Amino acid sequence: MAACTVYSTQTLRTNISIPTSSKTNVGLHQKQVLFFTTNQKNNSRRTNSNKRYLITCGAGDSQTIVIGLAADSGCGKSTFMRRLTSVFGGAAEPPKGGNPDSNTLISDTTTVICLDDYHSLDRTGRKEKGVTALDPKANDFDLMYEQVKAIKDGKSVQKPIYNHVTGLLDAPELIKPPKILVIEGLHPMYDSRVRELLDFSIYLDISNEVKFAWKIQRDMAERGHSLESIKASIEARKPDFEAYIDPQKQYADAVIEVLPTQLIPDDNEGKILRVRLIQKEGVKYFSPVYLFDEGSTISWIPCGRKLTCSYPGIKFFYGPETYKGNEVSVVEMDGQFDRLDELIYVESHLSNLSSKFYGEVTQQMLKHADFPGSNNGTGLFQTIVGLKIRDLFEQIVASRAETPVGAAKA
Amino acid sequence: MAACTVYSTQTLRTNISIPTSSKTNVGLHQKQVLFFTTNQKNNSRRTNSNKRYLITCGAGDSQTIVIGLAADSGCGKSTFMRRLTSVFGGAAEPPKGGNPDSNTLISDTTTVICLDDYHSLDRTGRKEKGVTALDPKANDFDLMYEQVKAIKDGKSVQKPIYNHVTGLLDAPELIKPPKILVIEGLHPMYDSRVRELLDFSIYLDISNEVKFAWKIQRDMAERGHSLESIKASIEARKPDFEAYIDPQKQYADAVIEVLPTQLIPDDNEGKILRVRLIQKEGVKYFSPVYLFDEGSTISWIPCGRKLTCSYPGIKFFYGPETYKGNEVSVVEMDGQFDRLDELIYVESHLSNLSSKFYGEVTQQMLKHADFPGSNNGTGLFQTIVGLKIRDLFEQIVASRAETPVGAAKA
Repeated sequence: MAACTVYSTQTLRTNISIPTSSKTNVGLHQKQVLFFTTNQKNNSRRTNSNKRYLITCGAGDSQTIVIGLAADSGCGKSTFMRRLTSVFGGAAEPPKGGNPDSNTLISDTTTVICLDDYHSLDRTGRKEKGVTALDPKANDFDLMYEQVKAIKDGKSVQKPIYNHVTGLLDAPELIKPPKILVIEGLHPMYDSRVRELLDFSIYLDISNEVKFAWKIQRDMAERGHSLESIKASIEARKPDFEAYIDPQKQYADAVIEVLPTQLIPDDNEGKILRVRLIQKEGVKYFSPVYLFDEGSTISWIPCGRKLTCSYPGIKFFYGPETYKGNEVSVVEMDGQFDRLDELIYVESHLSNLSSKFYGEVTQQMLKHADFPGSNNGTGLFQTIVGLKIRDLFEQIVASRAETPVGAAKA
Repeated sequence: MAACTVYSTQTLRTNISIPTSSKTNVGLHQKQVLFFTTNQKNNSRRTNSNKRYLITCGAGDSQTIVIGLAADSGCGKSTFMRRLTSVFGGAAEPPKGGNPDSNTLISDTTTVICLDDYHSLDRTGRKEKGVTALDPKANDFDLMYEQVKAIKDGKSVQKPIYNHVTGLLDAPELIKPPKILVIEGLHPMYDSRVRELLDFSIYLDISNEVKFAWKIQRDMAERGHSLESIKASIEARKPDFEAYIDPQKQYADAVIEVLPTQLIPDDNEGKILRVRLIQKEGVKYFSPVYLFDEGSTISWIPCGRKLTCSYPGIKFFYGPETYKGNEVSVVEMDGQFDRLDELIYVESHLSNLSSKFYGEVTQQMLKHADFPGSNNGTGLFQTIVGLKIRDLFEQIVASRAETPVGAAKA
């Protein structure tokens, strides 16, 4: 049983309206309901709603597991999240009956919240101050920390909504503690307090070359932007990206790095990708995936006598490395799957996949064959990370079941 | 039961003396004894003995298996042979009570004959004619074929002896059909008739760089030769070597290729070696050794988290290739073993070794730790080829046991 904690609130307003949806969600296990506003260091925070946040105290007997997913905007986080929730069996959907512009996705097991919702400056505010959304000054880390901590402690919160369409902050939505909370966005590992709440963290790292190739394809072909304007927009983001986003890599338990292929010399199409799954060693409940011989260095071209692949083939690498000062194990895939037998053959040679049955990775990839990256390392490694998170979740639950109640409180 | 065949003899001499040792060796299963001289196309053949050759007809129920081993002189053939006979459990020794300069090695299972014994020109003869021992003109392939065929058919022969000390042809020695006959020397696969008698063939290929490094070490350091004279002697051998010895590679079922290491940039010491075992595909009773995944392409550095190695480490490669127009599978080892755990670790990751128990390769290598190459790929692959030959032998014997006698004659 969790006791409720009142977080650093400064003003308790009396002028409160609880949305009906949140009222009906107050369940049997909840002991207390607190309404409070957060400590606003930055007074420029603009919302088009009341600054009210609700915390309800959950039973505390099934603490939420928190996963952080860092990535630049538009880099496949949502695909990743759909793969992750699919591993748990349910489909993720926006909260029913809520704000249609909500960024949240909820399934039976997981709730994915977008950290853009913790923007302290809306679009106009950022323009006025001359800061980008990448800048910590445009984000409310106090509130982010408080709410993630509250959810982790089993309490529901009223989370703000950043409306990507209007660029404004909408009225908050109720987030109830799920089994697994995923916080995805630009800064899940930026603030040390938030970082410490994470049970597992992932950084989706799209290399500049691939980002550029993708943006050209999308913004030039589909939106009619000029090559110059695309280059300029990438260059403009670079300083803040390197200052605030990129350094989070060092904290990630897993990094999915997306690079141009090395199978085609001087390829810059960005269609065939070399994807690296960089797995931190020594992370509790996380045993890195490996190829053939754990801890050694291996390169593997599965295409040969038993498996034939179309040009330019598939190449794997596995080995120990040092990444941002951490000891890691890297699995790398260059190339793409053209046929089912290629995928199942590769899966059968990877170890420590945390799959529940032979072929589960392949099954997941086929189930979402229409998702971007389902034929290459991005889809493969996102699926694998999904399985690892399920495994981590199950191990944590099992370890709690083994721990006496008294010990858990200590 | 084998019927005896009279080979292309031209002169049957009456002035015959059978050595006592050969008389006592005429066993119960032998039906006929023929004395004959061979057809000498080349009349320049010199011997210091009578030109008499004995053939005895064996029972024919355990046909000799014939293995060919080609290599340049002084390239580790004798070490290889000692490793091979050791795999079969016995030690190989020169024939008891015979010519002390005999080149033959006999163990319980194997008889190794040196093809130098089929030199048709002795040292003086070669000098007179201006031909090297590498030249087919200095060798009697008719006799080589006839005697190997005779042994394979279960008949004893009186094989000449080329005396490496005197450079002359000594009186012949009796060679009885063993379970396994190894013919080793410069030309086991040169003559198509001899080649067709081989159940398995091996080419020991020392690269020029390594040959040069070895010769420098031996001839300069130990024999006081000059660098120039070593270079000159290597250059002098080159044309004949390339014309008559090297082309045999295309016929070999297994090639052991010895190259300078690639682990140390620009190494020319020839101490650390990169050794490749090139295994022909589709050879009956021979299934190539592989690393991790049969038919794919793999490079493997076992030294890492589980296994630590001293500088410059160990690197393996495995993959399908085309070699001299043949489809082959290559296993390559660069570097050397410094400790037992390195050797056993590597063995445990190789498949299709044809070992009879876990660790047999390691045991064999340790047993002969004093043999040259016991800490690198030459020793490893020689030992493995030994196991493959034992396996081939056992498979052939088993297949004969399954075949009805009538069918065997067809």
